[in-house]
Amino acid sequence: MRAEIIAVGTELLLGQTVNTNATYISAGLAELGIDVYFQTVVGDNAARIVQAIEIARQRADLIVFTGGLGPTQDDLTKDALAGYLNRGIHIHEPSMVKIEALFSSRGIHMVESNRRQANQIEDSDPLENSAGLAVGNALLESGMHYVLLPGPPREMKPMFDGPAKAWLRSVMGEQQTLFSRLLKFAGIGESSLEQAIIDLIDSQSDPTIAPYAKEGEVAIRLSTKAVSLDEAVARLDIAQQQIKQRVGQYLFATEDIPLEEAVLRLLRVTGRRFATAESLTGGMLAELVTSLPGSSGEFVGGVVTYTNDMKHKLLGIPLAQLEGTDAPGAISESTAAMMAERVRELTDCDFGLSLTGVAGPSEAEGKPVGTVFFGIAERGKPTVVHKAMLSGNRDIIRLRSAKAILYRFWRLLSVD
Amino acid sequence: MRAEIIAVGTELLLGQTVNTNATYISAGLAELGIDVYFQTVVGDNAARIVQAIEIARQRADLIVFTGGLGPTQDDLTKDALAGYLNRGIHIHEPSMVKIEALFSSRGIHMVESNRRQANQIEDSDPLENSAGLAVGNALLESGMHYVLLPGPPREMKPMFDGPAKAWLRSVMGEQQTLFSRLLKFAGIGESSLEQAIIDLIDSQSDPTIAPYAKEGEVAIRLSTKAVSLDEAVARLDIAQQQIKQRVGQYLFATEDIPLEEAVLRLLRVTGRRFATAESLTGGMLAELVTSLPGSSGEFVGGVVTYTNDMKHKLLGIPLAQLEGTDAPGAISESTAAMMAERVRELTDCDFGLSLTGVAGPSEAEGKPVGTVFFGIAERGKPTVVHKAMLSGNRDIIRLRSAKAILYRFWRLLSVD
Repeated sequence: MRAEIIAVGTELLLGQTVNTNATYISAGLAELGIDVYFQTVVGDNAARIVQAIEIARQRADLIVFTGGLGPTQDDLTKDALAGYLNRGIHIHEPSMVKIEALFSSRGIHMVESNRRQANQIEDSDPLENSAGLAVGNALLESGMHYVLLPGPPREMKPMFDGPAKAWLRSVMGEQQTLFSRLLKFAGIGESSLEQAIIDLIDSQSDPTIAPYAKEGEVAIRLSTKAVSLDEAVARLDIAQQQIKQRVGQYLFATEDIPLEEAVLRLLRVTGRRFATAESLTGGMLAELVTSLPGSSGEFVGGVVTYTNDMKHKLLGIPLAQLEGTDAPGAISESTAAMMAERVRELTDCDFGLSLTGVAGPSEAEGKPVGTVFFGIAERGKPTVVHKAMLSGNRDIIRLRSAKAILYRFWRLLSVD
Repeated sequence: MRAEIIAVGTELLLGQTVNTNATYISAGLAELGIDVYFQTVVGDNAARIVQAIEIARQRADLIVFTGGLGPTQDDLTKDALAGYLNRGIHIHEPSMVKIEALFSSRGIHMVESNRRQANQIEDSDPLENSAGLAVGNALLESGMHYVLLPGPPREMKPMFDGPAKAWLRSVMGEQQTLFSRLLKFAGIGESSLEQAIIDLIDSQSDPTIAPYAKEGEVAIRLSTKAVSLDEAVARLDIAQQQIKQRVGQYLFATEDIPLEEAVLRLLRVTGRRFATAESLTGGMLAELVTSLPGSSGEFVGGVVTYTNDMKHKLLGIPLAQLEGTDAPGAISESTAAMMAERVRELTDCDFGLSLTGVAGPSEAEGKPVGTVFFGIAERGKPTVVHKAMLSGNRDIIRLRSAKAILYRFWRLLSVD
């Protein structure tokens, strides 16, 4: 099957928004074994959307649209395609019920245009929007497949990965399917990981081995085409084993979960809980953990002690430890240890985790940007402090700091 | 002038590379007053590149290519366009001298294919590559303008901003430039904002008024073409004033800054500071604020009290307030008030902000997903608590909660 992606949105043509949706959808289609030959971007203009459809259907069997499903009068994708195919538009009742329920539960007046998000092209299959209101559509006509996804990546991604891929698999029918498995690593950089297995990457064609970096973690995707799951699993297991022998100590998951989820799972087994004391990360570590539903079973809470005064007031760290010529300072091994210990004691839980360091843009206490100390205090055991020198801009250093302590915590828990 | 951007590269179609070049070039062309109507991505395939050229020249006066100027046999853009135009290819001597000098200075053998980077389409203007070896080309034929830029952003950007823009200005002659201004809003949804000014959007063509949503905030871009900045500012001011009369209470900035930055700026003026106590947002509010460099001047820190036990241990809220049949519960107006007051007292600063609610996926204390209470305690004043019913998935509810309290805090500070 040959596909074309049509991203709809004037903001893309004005250079205000990067077309990451085309990248995401292209990668996902490649995994399904569908080749993308063209990507097109067109503005919020019905005539030009139709032009783009006319061109695409001459060179593709599948058109995936993204954007233009929202409530405003600039959202034209469904109308344009329905007009082009001489089909009507009707209301997808479950979506309308959801839209009305939402506004009524919020007790606010619903602007009439919101109903447009329940529009469905006649004789199309609805694609559920789990993260928003605009329902997607999928339809097949004269051998041409059309899939309509919303524009906001937060809504597009779950709809594409869930109902849209399921629809595509069902219309493609039986054939060799691509199976893939994600191996997730932390505590090792992308290039070091690649170097450790470069001979496997170069010599292997089935499964293929493709490393890539993803927000403070690195991953390897193993992919193989097979007619059955069993056949695929056998091949993926062999490749996984080869890789594990080389870099197993960094491998925290064989599925697409973040490091914080791997940590929570280990804690859950033994019913233990932790708390955090953050300085340079300013709440990011707690935020990463609490972004996972159900994290309150393992994570109790913590403090954000962004200033010395707060390290003193909230954690009871003596000011003499933090300030003065001979003091170790806030960015030090001993302060990291105290922060971890104090937050554990305050919250009376099993582990206290602390982070203190220099996120930048400028140095602090004479320590360069990227200097980070992180401590792990465990009930009844000596506190451990690690030091790291991290690179990147402010946001990246903060994220890498949070991931670095999660990696050390995961290691500690997994050897328990 | 109407433009189309053609990005050439199979890696874009595989989803391995994000097409940031199209964004950069689109924004740059908009500044020159050139409208981009389409962006196309095509792989490293001569026949399909020619197809894309044929389509683009029917709907544009200018085609800007990016990618496919390198040394390998996959780099086909110049050959494809020259073939399409029935022109020859010759060597651009200064580029060849540069290529040979580079390899000789490095003392390494030059792979013959590197010479291809000095290729120039017959009767075209060379565009100097200050950051790499592949020379760019620009040419005009039968009213169609063609600009060929390299693919690596490091090489593309200086060539586009320097010689390519100079070439475009010279062929366009004197003309108007696009000026734009971003108005940022919070506390109002995209559709309500649009409805409030729909008559202005519909009736105004200069400046144009375009609303769009952006991660928990909404924005309006005003754009006008003018020959001078003064002329543009005068027109943008009038449109801004019209919009402000309708929805001024939601307008927190007339430039592209996040809401948290607007809050910090107001605090900075009066030298006041705040602390946070977060439940459902789990540190996200603190994280948003501390992602801004220099935020320690206005933000001191806070607590993440994710469990009832922590609201008791860290904030001293009585367990009788949180648990039991007749207790108000953790998700209540009175708990939000206590959290805000206690964190303000603990940290001894001017304001305490609190967030407690249900992020989902399931309800809590009998309250539905999306129920959020947020409190603002101010030194010497009565504490204010707001309630909101927010929609979206867990991540979106958390983000909207953080933005909702920032909006209320901004309003409080801006009327001070």
